[in-house]
Amino acid sequence: MEHFIESQQLTPEIIFDIFSRADEFRKDKIYDPILRGKVLATLFYEPSTRTRLSFETAMLRLGGSVVTTENAREFSSAVKGETLQDSIRVVSNYADCIVMRHYEEGMAKIASEISKVPVINAGDGKGQHPTQALLDLYTIWKETGRLTNLKIAIVGDLASGRTARSLCYLLGKFPGNEIIFLSPEHLKMKQDIKEYLSRHGVSYREEKNLDEVLPNVDIVYMTRIQKERITLDEYNSARGKYTINQNNFNLLNKNARILHPLPKIDEIVLPLETEEKDDRVAYFRQAENGLYIRMALLVHLMM
Amino acid sequence: MEHFIESQQLTPEIIFDIFSRADEFRKDKIYDPILRGKVLATLFYEPSTRTRLSFETAMLRLGGSVVTTENAREFSSAVKGETLQDSIRVVSNYADCIVMRHYEEGMAKIASEISKVPVINAGDGKGQHPTQALLDLYTIWKETGRLTNLKIAIVGDLASGRTARSLCYLLGKFPGNEIIFLSPEHLKMKQDIKEYLSRHGVSYREEKNLDEVLPNVDIVYMTRIQKERITLDEYNSARGKYTINQNNFNLLNKNARILHPLPKIDEIVLPLETEEKDDRVAYFRQAENGLYIRMALLVHLMM
Amino acid sequence: MEHFIESQQLTPEIIFDIFSRADEFRKDKIYDPILRGKVLATLFYEPSTRTRLSFETAMLRLGGSVVTTENAREFSSAVKGETLQDSIRVVSNYADCIVMRHYEEGMAKIASEISKVPVINAGDGKGQHPTQALLDLYTIWKETGRLTNLKIAIVGDLASGRTARSLCYLLGKFPGNEIIFLSPEHLKMKQDIKEYLSRHGVSYREEKNLDEVLPNVDIVYMTRIQKERITLDEYNSARGKYTINQNNFNLLNKNARILHPLPKIDEIVLPLETEEKDDRVAYFRQAENGLYIRMALLVHLMM
Repeated sequence: MEHFIESQQLTPEIIFDIFSRADEFRKDKIYDPILRGKVLATLFYEPSTRTRLSFETAMLRLGGSVVTTENAREFSSAVKGETLQDSIRVVSNYADCIVMRHYEEGMAKIASEISKVPVINAGDGKGQHPTQALLDLYTIWKETGRLTNLKIAIVGDLASGRTARSLCYLLGKFPGNEIIFLSPEHLKMKQDIKEYLSRHGVSYREEKNLDEVLPNVDIVYMTRIQKERITLDEYNSARGKYTINQNNFNLLNKNARILHPLPKIDEIVLPLETEEKDDRVAYFRQAENGLYIRMALLVHLMM
Repeated sequence: MEHFIESQQLTPEIIFDIFSRADEFRKDKIYDPILRGKVLATLFYEPSTRTRLSFETAMLRLGGSVVTTENAREFSSAVKGETLQDSIRVVSNYADCIVMRHYEEGMAKIASEISKVPVINAGDGKGQHPTQALLDLYTIWKETGRLTNLKIAIVGDLASGRTARSLCYLLGKFPGNEIIFLSPEHLKMKQDIKEYLSRHGVSYREEKNLDEVLPNVDIVYMTRIQKERITLDEYNSARGKYTINQNNFNLLNKNARILHPLPKIDEIVLPLETEEKDDRVAYFRQAENGLYIRMALLVHLMM
Repeated sequence: MEHFIESQQLTPEIIFDIFSRADEFRKDKIYDPILRGKVLATLFYEPSTRTRLSFETAMLRLGGSVVTTENAREFSSAVKGETLQDSIRVVSNYADCIVMRHYEEGMAKIASEISKVPVINAGDGKGQHPTQALLDLYTIWKETGRLTNLKIAIVGDLASGRTARSLCYLLGKFPGNEIIFLSPEHLKMKQDIKEYLSRHGVSYREEKNLDEVLPNVDIVYMTRIQKERITLDEYNSARGKYTINQNNFNLLNKNARILHPLPKIDEIVLPLETEEKDDRVAYFRQAENGLYIRMALLVHLMM
């Protein structure tokens, strides 16, 4: 694998290769500086502190170093009218790997076609966020012990939520999974993903009542209604429609897990004690896994 | 000490432990990379280039590395509505220590209650700025040779100036000190600090005429009128009321020292030559001491 | 050399000393960490992602580390009214070298007069951008094999383009060069540079027709019309007046080279294949050379 742009480009072999490396990092906590001398450039045309810090920490923990721009849209030559191609051509002369987030779908692919060094898509508009999908899948694997024969509810803004889309691509790689989509009427999962799932033999259906679904799934993958990608009307009619809180949390099976790519707002409201002690709350462990997965991915692409 | 949130949590033992380590760093200038492999996250919800660069340099000089966000308020998930608790939960999975500046009082404390790694308060609204107070105290100690029986004038915006507040807490730890407050009528030191000083046997009084005070003190601690924390009317009636310039500078005793947490605007206006050659100008040495104190503090919390 | 503020301060000896070190870095690609333990501060009062990342990568590749502020104008104490002198005094206590970009001409010089550590001018308003000039000259040398007896067309906004000005100073150091200026009437090269060239025996002239000039030069140095430094009227009447595209590209001599300090907008529009395969397109190699030149300069100033 030269670049990592879309989650569907991963094979099960590559997935488990990355997972087993992530497992080692997760166990060790002290790491060999195997990327010493390498430089990672994090180019964020749309701010995302969490994703950026996670990649940067991953690089630093492996002995590498980082150059960064946290708001390239406002601060970079893009303002002066430079094409993304020119920017990437120049940066790929400096760095050994580029992590790019962009507000426009497809830009990561364009960058990868020009770059002399590996490009990692850290989110491109309504497109994909494949490293998030990879850490989501890893978390499912660590939490349930398997990637097959899972019942997974995917909940929230499925039309513009790129993490949900990217995760579906990965779930399609493994047999026997069953997906239940729950979303406001106007934010439903798009046709292209549904067709992909059908083609790959993954059964899916759409439901309306979250409480009826909760007792029967292994994983609930909650997502945020992304105010910044839809109209205010769409936001207001979607917000608060699907939530997990003290009233319905215990409908979940004892072995089920709640995942969320974070940040979360009001789609999950649980007491501190539940968040800290109930094993079914998996989203903070999921965020931590992001570090190990990104370490493993950087090694995979740069060594 | 697990976190460093308020200056009053320091004991004289901890203070001198940090000071003696700072002394070594001040002497050596070449440092062992004792924090190699550690990652510091600097989360600034309110920009402060000086404080941020000082912490980051401290970490780098000890062989550690740094991830940073210089304007978290605008750029981070806070914009999307994430709670500070969630942000800290995630970042404390990545980093070994968090330095946080926040525009709101009390947020550092909240962060420390959630974080799995040490949190250092680098200023929280009108609350405190304890590392500044620590480097102020260290400078007083290096410049006068003692921390007891000092006469100290504290001048400027004492109502919203968190560095003045934090310093008072530390001065209360040592016997025999005498504080003179000078501030515009509407920006006086608040009652809670006065009560704290009384409780700890520190004598204090309020004066109006700076020139009359200057000949009789060991330390003048000047502070800026903080435009960004008060109304424009308050600012205009306060600005320029208490200044040190060529006219009153020489009223100072030969062994006295002027300190200022910087940045300064027009509350101190002295010729370049005086600033560079007159020993009584201590504020640039004070700024330099910030580096050694922060190095010592990072070691104290992470080793 | 203590600071690097203006390109005219370089002697041919220093130039070739830096060039020969840059040659080594260019060849090796793996570097000794000879700046380990050193800290570079990049202070950008005006954003410039490319220049900043290039300096930071240079420092990191040599084993050093970096503290940075990508938008000091908005985020730093400058907003609070602090003088540049005070800012530099403080930062020069932290770092071993300061790279500064400022929106105002002359500020780099002011910084260098105060700083205890080397200051590098990374562009000061309409003033100079001497490291760009140095990498431009290096590129001319690598591409043509010489620095004398060259015919060089300098094209674009020559009134506010600081890279064109800085390059002229360097070309004046070597005998037999001939410069042809092409610019919109209202953006002509200023008198001070013309006088400098005359004094140093460099012949220059102004021309109006780019196509007539192209067949007769060794180097075409294209520059961008800098919207941000002129009025909108000036911009509109200048834009698109001097361009290189498929129609006139082949008027160039087979051994000629096109340089551009980048970013470029529409003053050069060539097909991808030409940009990737035609040797006459030298501007991406030029950008890469920036890394080696800045590595060599950092070593020159800090070792």
